[in-house]
Amino acid sequence: MMRRWMTMLALAWAAPVAASPQSWVEQNRHAILREYVDLLALPNVATNLADIRRNAEHISAMMARRGLSPRLLESGDGKAPPLIYGEWRVPGAKRTLILYAHYDGQPVTPEQWKVTEPFKPVFLSGRHDKGGKPLPFPAAGQPIDPDWRVYGRAASDDKAGVMAILAAVDALKAEKRRPAFNLKIVFEGEEEAGSPNLTGLLRRHKETLASDGWIIVDGPAHQTGPTQLTLGVRGDVNAELIVYGPVRPLHSGHYGNWAPNPGMMLSELLASMKDETGRVTIAGFYDDVVPLSEAERAAIAAVPAPDAALRRELGLGWAEGGGATLTELIQLPSLNINGLRSADVGERSRNVIPTAATAALDLRLVLGNDPARQVEKLRQHIRAQGYELFDREPTMEERLRFPKVAMLTSETGYPAERTKLEHPLVRDLTAALRKNGPLVVLPSLGGSLPLYLIRQELGAPTLVTGFWNHDNNQHAEDENLRLQNLWTAISALAAVMTMK
Amino acid sequence: MMRRWMTMLALAWAAPVAASPQSWVEQNRHAILREYVDLLALPNVATNLADIRRNAEHISAMMARRGLSPRLLESGDGKAPPLIYGEWRVPGAKRTLILYAHYDGQPVTPEQWKVTEPFKPVFLSGRHDKGGKPLPFPAAGQPIDPDWRVYGRAASDDKAGVMAILAAVDALKAEKRRPAFNLKIVFEGEEEAGSPNLTGLLRRHKETLASDGWIIVDGPAHQTGPTQLTLGVRGDVNAELIVYGPVRPLHSGHYGNWAPNPGMMLSELLASMKDETGRVTIAGFYDDVVPLSEAERAAIAAVPAPDAALRRELGLGWAEGGGATLTELIQLPSLNINGLRSADVGERSRNVIPTAATAALDLRLVLGNDPARQVEKLRQHIRAQGYELFDREPTMEERLRFPKVAMLTSETGYPAERTKLEHPLVRDLTAALRKNGPLVVLPSLGGSLPLYLIRQELGAPTLVTGFWNHDNNQHAEDENLRLQNLWTAISALAAVMTMK
Repeated sequence: MMRRWMTMLALAWAAPVAASPQSWVEQNRHAILREYVDLLALPNVATNLADIRRNAEHISAMMARRGLSPRLLESGDGKAPPLIYGEWRVPGAKRTLILYAHYDGQPVTPEQWKVTEPFKPVFLSGRHDKGGKPLPFPAAGQPIDPDWRVYGRAASDDKAGVMAILAAVDALKAEKRRPAFNLKIVFEGEEEAGSPNLTGLLRRHKETLASDGWIIVDGPAHQTGPTQLTLGVRGDVNAELIVYGPVRPLHSGHYGNWAPNPGMMLSELLASMKDETGRVTIAGFYDDVVPLSEAERAAIAAVPAPDAALRRELGLGWAEGGGATLTELIQLPSLNINGLRSADVGERSRNVIPTAATAALDLRLVLGNDPARQVEKLRQHIRAQGYELFDREPTMEERLRFPKVAMLTSETGYPAERTKLEHPLVRDLTAALRKNGPLVVLPSLGGSLPLYLIRQELGAPTLVTGFWNHDNNQHAEDENLRLQNLWTAISALAAVMTMK
Repeated sequence: MMRRWMTMLALAWAAPVAASPQSWVEQNRHAILREYVDLLALPNVATNLADIRRNAEHISAMMARRGLSPRLLESGDGKAPPLIYGEWRVPGAKRTLILYAHYDGQPVTPEQWKVTEPFKPVFLSGRHDKGGKPLPFPAAGQPIDPDWRVYGRAASDDKAGVMAILAAVDALKAEKRRPAFNLKIVFEGEEEAGSPNLTGLLRRHKETLASDGWIIVDGPAHQTGPTQLTLGVRGDVNAELIVYGPVRPLHSGHYGNWAPNPGMMLSELLASMKDETGRVTIAGFYDDVVPLSEAERAAIAAVPAPDAALRRELGLGWAEGGGATLTELIQLPSLNINGLRSADVGERSRNVIPTAATAALDLRLVLGNDPARQVEKLRQHIRAQGYELFDREPTMEERLRFPKVAMLTSETGYPAERTKLEHPLVRDLTAALRKNGPLVVLPSLGGSLPLYLIRQELGAPTLVTGFWNHDNNQHAEDENLRLQNLWTAISALAAVMTMK
């Protein structure tokens, strides 16, 4: 009963027939935003399975209202966030394509959020650090400025993807059109946790997920504004490095100058990993990289350079790379410090020699890099700096036996993936997106998604569309989405769904 | 009425006449511990004035019970923790000496405490990380093991000083003896905050605080076990260094390899400050040091070397100083990293390029070093590494104008202080302490106290007694006191009070 009632309601508010996806979006902004902020209000950190399941049920209901026959594709052991699956079968269609987004979000550090609590979405008239002011939810009929923003965890990464795909379906239904292919929809629930169960899910539901290609709706638009189509992604592997000092914190007066300080040791170790231009000095770090093709190099050269504008916007007096552009540099593997921690700073700082210092690292990978092999290069480098390296906390005996001890742990990570520029789907998608507005085509995104799995398990190519404002603070506090980017995404995806 | 009742009670439980301070302590352990844990249960972080005042009232009542005529010496503006003052005038005494301790404690990070909450003192049968088990408060008549420990903030730094001085007064009263000098007692309430108001307090109460010398009861016993008499202390100045990256956190995939990482920049900057032996490489860092006298060098050479035992205990596979001993090294200025922080590590870590990286630093100073001059050397060093250095957050314009920007802020700090080995008070105190047990005499403690102020404002020399177990985690989580160290301190201070 409940379901039928909701379906009727969905049909009711999607009823006015619009002349184009753009005009449908214009006429339905309030309803889209209402549904969207309700979705953002559900906490969705992948490690909280109860929260994740609430999201899955909620999104399934959204799909049911649209007649998309949703199902939860489970891992079988009940321990993994399910894939949310829906479909719109089109009799006589020649191909089947999957539109993908993920419904989980990055972990949150609530006290760092300035604008709102992570799961209490709010509207602002612009960026909070550029004079944007809080706004009430727009009243019915009130004009909605395209520069307004919604703040909240996953506002752009990637519940915007979920919302845009479902609203594009609404746009088609309102125009009484149907997709040009069998449309399958997949929403993943643990992308931000590194997709540890995706392989199993793809294997278990191989038949259901059969397709001629996946279109990923995740990631930002180009920094210069246009929608971005990328043919691949970097791989990624996270590692944590802990350098050990004394087994208990020491008074820095009584022992300072004598007891080794793990903060200083970690600083020296990290400093040894890059040269002054930011080039990684770990032996063999760039050795496995598959060179770009002539066509890929040409595509990169055609991308408008956002560097100067970005440096102004970000307040950067210099950039790594010794003069190379951002677009060139993200085609290379990277080593990045995500965080540092040793004892405390600020008001909680005390005059101690800490017991340990920790660095959270991520290594981005490009075609040719293997995650385990890349971490092994890091491990060898640390050993070459005089460290005995463990994958667990060293024992007292080990601390005494070796001058310097550290622990390096790493996740499994995953490799990069890239579809060739010459693939027919690239041509079709490029044409459909160009109809909707300016487009940048990039061989590889700087960010990471586990796209290699889709080729490995299902044999399908993947292409990635990026719609969200690049200054969206994704993965950080005060994540936000500029509304125009959502409107553009909805009409673009409606165009993609009807591409020949 | 209340006060008279308490005085009578104090006399009642101090009544049994003992043959020596040691035997008095043996007979009164339960009562001392009861009074002590009640004192530890009062939160005493110096920045919380309401808490500090509760401590001051409580300790005044403890002194009143002993007939020590307590008064609170106020700063006048009501904004500073008061000195708690008490006295025991002795007709015909030839000199006046002050016994000093401080009643405030270091800030706390409660979630790091493993044994108890910082202000819920508990007894353990030994160190928590060496098999010590929680114990109930010892029942009357139950034997008390000297190796038991009390855990809680300020358990040894420095409410143990407050308790030991007052219990030593009890011991004298029980034996119907009186001090060999006019005894004044001063308890400071913001030592751990760097004593910002001590100058004003000493000036304002100069007459009250007139004396021939101060005996400071604060700091650990020698690491090899004996009570420690030190003739001076290192000075100290804290600084905070922040290196800036992008004005907002960036996705490490989309920008990693291009946007400068402040964690890496800070690592490089810190690594440039010390060589591989831990020697500070900042230009002129050791230039102002007043050389040790022949007698001081001899005293240092006579100190038993704790190095090998300490390294075993602390799990240190190496030590700074290129082979010099701990005792030698704490006679030099130092640069120490108290803490590091950039974004997050562990479960809260996210794949970002952080906006900033912070290091909390402390610089210990020896005779000849000036705090401001020492910080200026650090500042020059940072500039020499290519940084534009601010004492506030740089503006957007400044971030863009200079390749690398950082902020260095520092507290006022204070210089070192040292009394000459030849001073008569050194001779008397050495003799009194030796009567009570083994003694180590050191020209300077590694730790810091604002003793220079006492010479500067009151013209009095200072000597420092150290009684507490060196493995007491002072300034850190799980601070504790080994009971025998308290018993030793009480009988030693009773001997000091009666020294000729």
